[in-house]
Amino acid sequence: MADNRLIYLPLGGAGEVGMNAYVYGYGPEGAERLILVDLGVTFPNMDTTPGVDLIFPDLSWLLERVDQLEAIIITHGHEDHIGALGHFWERLGAPVYARKFTGALAARKLDEHGGDMGAVQVVGPWPDMSQLGPFKVSFLPVSHSIPESSAIVIDTPAGRIIHTGDFKLDGSPVVGEPFDADLWREVVGQGVKTLVCDSTNVMVGHPGRSEEVVGPAIQDLVRKAKGMVVATTFASNVARVKTLADAATAAGRSVCLLGRAMKRMITVAQETGVLTDFPSTVSPEEAQQIPRENLMLLSTGSQGERRAATAQLARGKYLGLEMKEGDLFLFSSKTIPGNERGVLQIVNSFSEMGVDVVDDSAGIYHVSGHANGPDLEALHDLVKPEMLVPMHGEHRMLRRHAKLAADKGIATEIATNGTMLDLTGKTPDVVEYIESSRTYLDGAVKIGALDGVVRDRIRLALNGHIMVTLIIDEDDEPLGEPWAEVMGLPETGLSNTALVEIIEAEVDQMLGRAADKILTDDKALDDSIRRIVRQTCMSEIGKKPEVTVVVSRLA
Amino acid sequence: MADNRLIYLPLGGAGEVGMNAYVYGYGPEGAERLILVDLGVTFPNMDTTPGVDLIFPDLSWLLERVDQLEAIIITHGHEDHIGALGHFWERLGAPVYARKFTGALAARKLDEHGGDMGAVQVVGPWPDMSQLGPFKVSFLPVSHSIPESSAIVIDTPAGRIIHTGDFKLDGSPVVGEPFDADLWREVVGQGVKTLVCDSTNVMVGHPGRSEEVVGPAIQDLVRKAKGMVVATTFASNVARVKTLADAATAAGRSVCLLGRAMKRMITVAQETGVLTDFPSTVSPEEAQQIPRENLMLLSTGSQGERRAATAQLARGKYLGLEMKEGDLFLFSSKTIPGNERGVLQIVNSFSEMGVDVVDDSAGIYHVSGHANGPDLEALHDLVKPEMLVPMHGEHRMLRRHAKLAADKGIATEIATNGTMLDLTGKTPDVVEYIESSRTYLDGAVKIGALDGVVRDRIRLALNGHIMVTLIIDEDDEPLGEPWAEVMGLPETGLSNTALVEIIEAEVDQMLGRAADKILTDDKALDDSIRRIVRQTCMSEIGKKPEVTVVVSRLA
Repeated sequence: MADNRLIYLPLGGAGEVGMNAYVYGYGPEGAERLILVDLGVTFPNMDTTPGVDLIFPDLSWLLERVDQLEAIIITHGHEDHIGALGHFWERLGAPVYARKFTGALAARKLDEHGGDMGAVQVVGPWPDMSQLGPFKVSFLPVSHSIPESSAIVIDTPAGRIIHTGDFKLDGSPVVGEPFDADLWREVVGQGVKTLVCDSTNVMVGHPGRSEEVVGPAIQDLVRKAKGMVVATTFASNVARVKTLADAATAAGRSVCLLGRAMKRMITVAQETGVLTDFPSTVSPEEAQQIPRENLMLLSTGSQGERRAATAQLARGKYLGLEMKEGDLFLFSSKTIPGNERGVLQIVNSFSEMGVDVVDDSAGIYHVSGHANGPDLEALHDLVKPEMLVPMHGEHRMLRRHAKLAADKGIATEIATNGTMLDLTGKTPDVVEYIESSRTYLDGAVKIGALDGVVRDRIRLALNGHIMVTLIIDEDDEPLGEPWAEVMGLPETGLSNTALVEIIEAEVDQMLGRAADKILTDDKALDDSIRRIVRQTCMSEIGKKPEVTVVVSRLA
Repeated sequence: MADNRLIYLPLGGAGEVGMNAYVYGYGPEGAERLILVDLGVTFPNMDTTPGVDLIFPDLSWLLERVDQLEAIIITHGHEDHIGALGHFWERLGAPVYARKFTGALAARKLDEHGGDMGAVQVVGPWPDMSQLGPFKVSFLPVSHSIPESSAIVIDTPAGRIIHTGDFKLDGSPVVGEPFDADLWREVVGQGVKTLVCDSTNVMVGHPGRSEEVVGPAIQDLVRKAKGMVVATTFASNVARVKTLADAATAAGRSVCLLGRAMKRMITVAQETGVLTDFPSTVSPEEAQQIPRENLMLLSTGSQGERRAATAQLARGKYLGLEMKEGDLFLFSSKTIPGNERGVLQIVNSFSEMGVDVVDDSAGIYHVSGHANGPDLEALHDLVKPEMLVPMHGEHRMLRRHAKLAADKGIATEIATNGTMLDLTGKTPDVVEYIESSRTYLDGAVKIGALDGVVRDRIRLALNGHIMVTLIIDEDDEPLGEPWAEVMGLPETGLSNTALVEIIEAEVDQMLGRAADKILTDDKALDDSIRRIVRQTCMSEIGKKPEVTVVVSRLA
């Protein structure tokens, strides 16, 4: 009988922040029974993924092994942990395990994509356990920036794994469960083989702060404000939304929620019981009737997302509401690297309106949801694992986290997406590299990151596009003149003549000189036209555009 | 006789960081004699300016008035103050005034573009004065992150203006002149009408630090390093480059300069005498022979620029040199907002190589070249101007700066690019809004920001491109079938048939149904084909691409 082994394979989230997807397996090599922890997305940008709607992990490896998959486990409801669930559940076909609030969000994801909401198994926290093939799995509460976040205790025949999910050490998280060190001590008491641990904030050198510290600062700010107050944060940060709403109430202001995500999150949090005593809110229509100094709007779009409520307010009216001179806008959030340009554009638009913008540069209106370096060390010391595998972070973060562990004599290994570790023994051993890329949602279609579609779009954006059409008659001679169309290029170049005319003339001349064997050979003709177009553009406009040649033969 | 007036017109730099260009004028309305202070560039990005090489201020207003232009004055040698000089000098045709080091850089700019290097007038600092039409102009030394930076004292019949350029209050700038408060007191003694003042760091609440503070921290870091050390900073920050090189020498390491800008700046600084006692350097070829622990490379590309030495090292070998496990890489720089993604990509590449990356998150390996909020207030107090016009900054910075001034009872006005102020009286009064956009250098051609070329490229990048060609015969009937080509779109959509085939079939069907009046009307035919292609794509791939239709008529 083959030896059983315990494997760990990140398909997303290891080597990046976002797009979490981690596979655990136990059984004979190649026939392990599998569970998937989290199934998140990451977001596109113009630099690398123009026109793409969402980015998923490349699940090819797992999709070839769906018969081995016991379950999908969701640690918490952030998009980078749950966002791909609806898009892949049908093909994965496994039950989805989550706690109540997360489960409600998961069920919505399935429903939106025609999946079976009944596939979601809502389970209680530790000490509740679910038997999933060779695994016994339990949800161990942690604090984070969304309610009901959980670490996953994975008991295997080879020992206990704790997969932290996203977490911080917060004893007073305002909404949801505090981090309970005593509970954790109970769980780790019998020994933990492997701690698979969040690395997002490992580079931050000071201990993290509790969610409760932002309340007084925000209350003070809102109380002193004269005009309308608008605040933005992640809608899923239910604790922060409550802190903001409470500050409004304390200052005698009505609360209005702007943006679909904001309303949905509060509704789900209330329905599932994680949020109680949230102030009553007014609709945008009602808000228009309330004096500005008695009003506070809570809006989506803290990252500058173009379609969200905040960006719309920055462009003008949104649902009849409008910022004015003397109003206050609060970013109760941190700008995620890469989003700076969009956020600053909004700040400057508000500035032009005479709105005072307050962000978290003072460090008092926002706290992170992730454990900082010293907090991670505290967790290492609490859990005392035999091995530590850093996950969820860019390579520099995984590396720093591995170093923290190694300095304490804990066996560790950096495993980025596609790196399979064998955790059976005393050290994490790399046993295989899986080809692992990314999958893009592009409109309604899933495309592979490496299949060239997006590369072509980037080329179009950098170089512009020239199309040349030509008709070749029955005698293999050009019929009439070639025709050029230009998109994304200057109309005229250095010679001050229309670029298309110059190209048409150059192609025409080339055709006049061309030997029969070129005119009769589609490939040769295409190459020749392409070359002359690019040469002409180089001398006329100093760049080489993308060229498409269409030759129609009247045969 | 018409009244003379004193005007101020920013064409770049006011409402943004970068692309500085400020016009001052004195004389009868519409016939003012003009000077231009600075002529800089800003840099493109994929979000808003894909494929563009450089961004210039829109100089249309000034180009229509070149006969009124007395001179171009350059405060210092940063690209955002001097970078557009070579591209426009020929058409502006005015003498260029600068101090020695800046003048040498300016002459190179003219030379690179076939301009007359003799147009550069090298002048000395205050109290030297140049008479330029109705203006008397003097260069008043300030400290900044490049040698020989100067504020410009502009004496006019309506009073004295001080245009600060970029500056900080640094008494020990390592290379170049310290900020000399006594000298400034001498200059402002007779009263300053208007202070036109750098706003870049107005949001920073603590006083700025001197360049000299980074030396000890860098020396300590380099001394403790075991492998090769590589450091990057702006090449033009000659003081920093010297600090880094001195740290290398102190640690017994040879210094090698990587990147053209790095070598050029040091050479020009040495030739013009602003840099003395720079350690001797080794070439990249020589560096290959030196043990890594005895070597320090100083490389360009602190902002993650793809073609610079740093990015090339992150991708692999550069001039035979290569980073290895145990080496140290130091970013002695701050990442400019918008460049985070590129810089972090490099950091993670180094991390994968096992290189330790140190950046300035600890705040000890870099200081800014701009005056912070409290420093600006100190300057206001020193200069005691009648009016203050905030310049060089995003709107939020100009607004904050104007508020600082207003709180002190100084008359002020926010004037963004294109806003002409009349400074003749006691307050800055907006008298006109000039249409002012941006000019792009695109390959070899200058294009307007609003002429649609870049907008089309962004559309291509977001939506992809479909080209449909069709031949209409002498009887106004389609000859053969339409032909579709696709770029930047998935090959197959939801129906799993090739997208081009589906499009061709749908267009063909439409043509079969089409009335004669459509087939005979180019515009109607184009519209019909475009519509059917976009509808087809929407249902097949869930997005609407850009469509180009080429109809060839055999007439």
